[in-house]
Amino acid sequence: MPKLKMGMVGGGEGAFIGAVHRMASNIDGQIELVCGAFSSSAEKSQRSGEALFLDASRCYASYQEMMDKEAALPEDERMDFVSIVTPNHMHFPVAVAALEAGFHVMSDKPATLTLDEAIKLRAKVEETGLLYGLTHTYTGYPLVREAKARVAKDDFGTIRKVVVEYPQGWLADADGDDNKQAAWRIDPAKAGVSCCMGDIGVHAANLAEYICGIEITDICSDLNTFVDGRTLDDDGSVLLRFNNGAKGVLMASQISMGEENGIRIRAYGDKGGFEWRQEEPNTLTLKWNHKPAELVRTAAYGEFSALAQAAMRTPAGHPEGYLEAFANLYKDFSEHVRARKEGRDVAETAKTLTGIKEAVRGMAFIEHVVKASEEDTKWHTLPQY
Amino acid sequence: MPKLKMGMVGGGEGAFIGAVHRMASNIDGQIELVCGAFSSSAEKSQRSGEALFLDASRCYASYQEMMDKEAALPEDERMDFVSIVTPNHMHFPVAVAALEAGFHVMSDKPATLTLDEAIKLRAKVEETGLLYGLTHTYTGYPLVREAKARVAKDDFGTIRKVVVEYPQGWLADADGDDNKQAAWRIDPAKAGVSCCMGDIGVHAANLAEYICGIEITDICSDLNTFVDGRTLDDDGSVLLRFNNGAKGVLMASQISMGEENGIRIRAYGDKGGFEWRQEEPNTLTLKWNHKPAELVRTAAYGEFSALAQAAMRTPAGHPEGYLEAFANLYKDFSEHVRARKEGRDVAETAKTLTGIKEAVRGMAFIEHVVKASEEDTKWHTLPQY
Amino acid sequence: MPKLKMGMVGGGEGAFIGAVHRMASNIDGQIELVCGAFSSSAEKSQRSGEALFLDASRCYASYQEMMDKEAALPEDERMDFVSIVTPNHMHFPVAVAALEAGFHVMSDKPATLTLDEAIKLRAKVEETGLLYGLTHTYTGYPLVREAKARVAKDDFGTIRKVVVEYPQGWLADADGDDNKQAAWRIDPAKAGVSCCMGDIGVHAANLAEYICGIEITDICSDLNTFVDGRTLDDDGSVLLRFNNGAKGVLMASQISMGEENGIRIRAYGDKGGFEWRQEEPNTLTLKWNHKPAELVRTAAYGEFSALAQAAMRTPAGHPEGYLEAFANLYKDFSEHVRARKEGRDVAETAKTLTGIKEAVRGMAFIEHVVKASEEDTKWHTLPQY
Amino acid sequence: MPKLKMGMVGGGEGAFIGAVHRMASNIDGQIELVCGAFSSSAEKSQRSGEALFLDASRCYASYQEMMDKEAALPEDERMDFVSIVTPNHMHFPVAVAALEAGFHVMSDKPATLTLDEAIKLRAKVEETGLLYGLTHTYTGYPLVREAKARVAKDDFGTIRKVVVEYPQGWLADADGDDNKQAAWRIDPAKAGVSCCMGDIGVHAANLAEYICGIEITDICSDLNTFVDGRTLDDDGSVLLRFNNGAKGVLMASQISMGEENGIRIRAYGDKGGFEWRQEEPNTLTLKWNHKPAELVRTAAYGEFSALAQAAMRTPAGHPEGYLEAFANLYKDFSEHVRARKEGRDVAETAKTLTGIKEAVRGMAFIEHVVKASEEDTKWHTLPQY
Repeated sequence: MPKLKMGMVGGGEGAFIGAVHRMASNIDGQIELVCGAFSSSAEKSQRSGEALFLDASRCYASYQEMMDKEAALPEDERMDFVSIVTPNHMHFPVAVAALEAGFHVMSDKPATLTLDEAIKLRAKVEETGLLYGLTHTYTGYPLVREAKARVAKDDFGTIRKVVVEYPQGWLADADGDDNKQAAWRIDPAKAGVSCCMGDIGVHAANLAEYICGIEITDICSDLNTFVDGRTLDDDGSVLLRFNNGAKGVLMASQISMGEENGIRIRAYGDKGGFEWRQEEPNTLTLKWNHKPAELVRTAAYGEFSALAQAAMRTPAGHPEGYLEAFANLYKDFSEHVRARKEGRDVAETAKTLTGIKEAVRGMAFIEHVVKASEEDTKWHTLPQY
Repeated sequence: MPKLKMGMVGGGEGAFIGAVHRMASNIDGQIELVCGAFSSSAEKSQRSGEALFLDASRCYASYQEMMDKEAALPEDERMDFVSIVTPNHMHFPVAVAALEAGFHVMSDKPATLTLDEAIKLRAKVEETGLLYGLTHTYTGYPLVREAKARVAKDDFGTIRKVVVEYPQGWLADADGDDNKQAAWRIDPAKAGVSCCMGDIGVHAANLAEYICGIEITDICSDLNTFVDGRTLDDDGSVLLRFNNGAKGVLMASQISMGEENGIRIRAYGDKGGFEWRQEEPNTLTLKWNHKPAELVRTAAYGEFSALAQAAMRTPAGHPEGYLEAFANLYKDFSEHVRARKEGRDVAETAKTLTGIKEAVRGMAFIEHVVKASEEDTKWHTLPQY
Repeated sequence: MPKLKMGMVGGGEGAFIGAVHRMASNIDGQIELVCGAFSSSAEKSQRSGEALFLDASRCYASYQEMMDKEAALPEDERMDFVSIVTPNHMHFPVAVAALEAGFHVMSDKPATLTLDEAIKLRAKVEETGLLYGLTHTYTGYPLVREAKARVAKDDFGTIRKVVVEYPQGWLADADGDDNKQAAWRIDPAKAGVSCCMGDIGVHAANLAEYICGIEITDICSDLNTFVDGRTLDDDGSVLLRFNNGAKGVLMASQISMGEENGIRIRAYGDKGGFEWRQEEPNTLTLKWNHKPAELVRTAAYGEFSALAQAAMRTPAGHPEGYLEAFANLYKDFSEHVRARKEGRDVAETAKTLTGIKEAVRGMAFIEHVVKASEEDTKWHTLPQY
Repeated sequence: MPKLKMGMVGGGEGAFIGAVHRMASNIDGQIELVCGAFSSSAEKSQRSGEALFLDASRCYASYQEMMDKEAALPEDERMDFVSIVTPNHMHFPVAVAALEAGFHVMSDKPATLTLDEAIKLRAKVEETGLLYGLTHTYTGYPLVREAKARVAKDDFGTIRKVVVEYPQGWLADADGDDNKQAAWRIDPAKAGVSCCMGDIGVHAANLAEYICGIEITDICSDLNTFVDGRTLDDDGSVLLRFNNGAKGVLMASQISMGEENGIRIRAYGDKGGFEWRQEEPNTLTLKWNHKPAELVRTAAYGEFSALAQAAMRTPAGHPEGYLEAFANLYKDFSEHVRARKEGRDVAETAKTLTGIKEAVRGMAFIEHVVKASEEDTKWHTLPQY
């Protein structure tokens, strides 16, 4: 079987996350970018595509055109799946269009602009039977996966306490609000009901659930808008209850000056605890009460869970980074697509890919964390959708 | 003027914190232990005192005896102040007895068993006009003081967000509940209404207020008891509002396995942020949005605020620890006592010593954080007492 | 202009570094693998190539065949350059064959098995006028480049002292000597006159010269073989003199148990110093005598030298790793190839790519550090070749 | 038995290390400062002593007077031992005078100005049969002792490689050469044949031998003087051979800008390795080839060797610092003095106190490292004296 063929929507000149998706999908040499609708400007889309070495005929003026024209190509020529890297408000219409045209979807997060859209999108995924992946990047780090595997085999006992945080500082000044990356995030029309929680808080919530294998059931939310002139949150703290009785704290902030992308999780069970943080992602610290802490390090040739092993590319001490984590999501998604094409089971290690279920949960978290923040009662139940 | 003369109540054989107070008061050679009622057992008190090189006649059978007999000694022989290092429930009666007998008091924290006692104690302090110091140890670290000084001169701008935490793991197992240190902390009769918040949460609250120069006005509290068979909290998370509009999160835990005494504070203003943690107390990290983070390091000969400078003893790279921080509280308290004896003003650098005001605030925090945890409404106002 | 076309020699099934070169050359989507001679076994080469989605006709049985057949293809079809990822002893013959067939060469390090070969290779490069790149990986890290740029603009003053080290532990046991990666490294026929210095010590020497912009002139060498049964060094320490009067220490070790790939450099000038280490490559620590240390962090949107800026792909806090560093070498090499094809100047930021000059210097270092170790005199001059 | 009585020579107003000795001897409340000759100026000595609460009659005008007058006091009044905290050139005459007057000696390091003096001092110690302790401070850290204990019970196997370093930056500028602390260190008349090696290099050598239980037999030395106008070394690197076949590197520097007191040791045996550094002294990292690194942390109630246990004062997470390490040397020395007075064996845990043997070895190291640096031959044997 040849390389998988990817089409991209969004990610033209000046965009940030599109380039990340392309680099991530490139690393393993399993996926080939064959077409794209890189911008809502036809000219810009054309120019962007050619700079990516695409055939001019497959640089489309709109995502609708891309779906139509690609669907009309012979099966062995047309794209296998669509990668969606637009601002948030376009995720839903593009995903629906792709699914309706018969293409699998790999989407940047959050899945949609609203919870309602997410529920509709799930229906569409179920109706078409096509594949849907959501790039909750941090789940791609090898040691995040190792932590998940160790929780699953009860190394830490029953999880009692989870502290997950995602501090950033880059939106601490109103001055930066007109830069391209900031502008859409603070605009409700493009970002939805939340800035901070929608952009990064939801990553933290997802990471906690992914690793610990438990689900948030209730939240006590306190969102803040520190910078004048904004309508959405730029900071927030949330107390958590989980379905196994664990408690937790989730903090996300975009006004924590000097912080970069400090997503970090600490969790404690009744046997032990662990800590992982993205800024030094190749160390997983295991914590014990009556013996020394241990430093588990990323290492392609070490003794790890199969889940983690499948996500490593370099020997110990040769650090793996954000792009490799992102690449693992594309690797998993590719495995799903290939297994589908080959009519076989998906490899076990690819099964933790975040998908439509997490998409709906994420949107539910975002909408309810905003609602809960406005309430006077302490605890707000997160409904199941 | 000779060394100051200290009497001690509590801290006999097998005790932990009494030895800490003695070492801390020893370091600078300004204070001499002259007497003590080290145990409620007369024999044990005697034996403890003699092991500390005390004259047998000044190893008392009870704190009442100590107050009486010392008060009867000539002024230049009797103790200058009492150091109280008993379990929590004895702090109040001993402090009152000492004040009534005319002695200044340096007390281990928390000041009393209940808020009510703290208010009464404050009245007694005011009535007698004597000195009262409370050992909120972490305020003695040089770089905690440097952080306080830098906040005060507006280096970080208006503080918006404070995250303060104190994770421990040592009470994660019921197994340890019969060791001496654990037993009284989990016993309401000896510890008061709270274990975790009373023992360590209050340190975190105090540290945040001390450094940032702002006061907690409202709390949203979620306390937990994870270990079966306990009646008091062994973990808790609290959302905070401060009187300058800042928000915060306070986490304290005694079931966070593998954590030691991880008290740590991060705060962010509208100009910059900082981080300090006790486990590596000689580094204060300054965080900025558009320039590199800076590592300020303890160094007796560096350029620091007078407040921090007065708290340092060694050159950069020669780490100062917990005992030196504790010693700084005794150093400050000694300065207050000496200034009083000499009829002069207290040195500016000694004025941040935590005292009866913080004692009352601390007890108010403890009682209200417990009350608030039981309520369904989100925010609970912390009254001024 | 289309993607550049790469042919690969070596890197078939079971190999390690070939996959690294492929991932690194993939990331930016500027290079396409079009052919290869992946193994000395024709069958294995074929199987490896097909797993990489190559056309069967371009999976060659030998590198000689690859050179012949590719050279015979039309110019717009044949490969643009050859990537050499074989064990050390094959680097030279393959590079010569490629150059003679008219192809540019990107070679894994060390360039050749012997200094003599390196000198011959240089002659061949000069004779053909073709491009030659050598993958001294660590020079690809953004903050290594930032350090180089800061030294160049005199931020640290005249460099006086350089400490560079590369500790590993993986060859500490004879037990591992029959694994594929170990076996050739300890075999003089495949690795040359040195194991530890040839494999990793030369990286350390190169890194010091690359960043500091000075050259080693004299060495005092002490190589060791700690594991019985080996003939080559598995550890060594070398004192250094540089051409600007600086002194240094170079340590490399493969028997330092528990160490991973801890290449690290510290250098001190008469104005300040810096430290960088690969295991946390996204922090460059600046050290000053009378102000706090500063932490410079990788960040695609920060204020950096153009050299470093060109080497960054992600925002602050999203760690870049080993593959991205490696990718920067391919990015630089691509720029050289494209500039040559387009008849234009090479971009300034690509000019620090390590090439044939460093190849010869590296081999000279390896041979002389072995010679010097056997001598009784302290200092051994490193000749200019 | 009462507190031990200490007399001090040196350490008057403006001195640094005298205050450190006093604080260190104070901490445990076992030692009382009873007299001193704090300065060569009688008036300054008097003033210094009174500030330390001494009886005016025991503030002596000279060390000779102190020896005479104290020796004439009744046995239960006179000092038990002399603490010597003068600049280096006075260590020898004061120590000899004390021993001849019948007093035990606790001396700051280095023991003497020259090797010859050290040998004579050893003879005097042996002749008098009195106790002699040398404050190699770093041997007092709990985790240094734990490392020693673990090496001794073969946790790491046979030590093969030792890397010990002591970088400082404070003498990088000639500007500081007239400050009091710098001035005597760079003056051969007061510091002896070496500045950097005598002041800090010898600490590094001692630390390596103390922990690893092996002795340096040969050195290859390269000392430097980077700052113009100095006659002594301000930097140096030394290759080492040990009596068990291990190799090593010792680096000491006073011109490494931005470095504080970064003494650090890494050692590797054929089973595992470890690392300890003073700037974060409460962590000992254990390194293994096939399992995670472990972080052993200072903790008064943990499972440690008796040697380390005896050196700890606080629970895990409450950092112990430089003064506590220093206090452990006084604690050990006190135990020797008390055991002598009580006619009993010294406690096992006090037996690693560095004494006259290490004093001679240290001076031999200093003199030979200077000699060796001037030689053209690579290896220089360190004679046994």
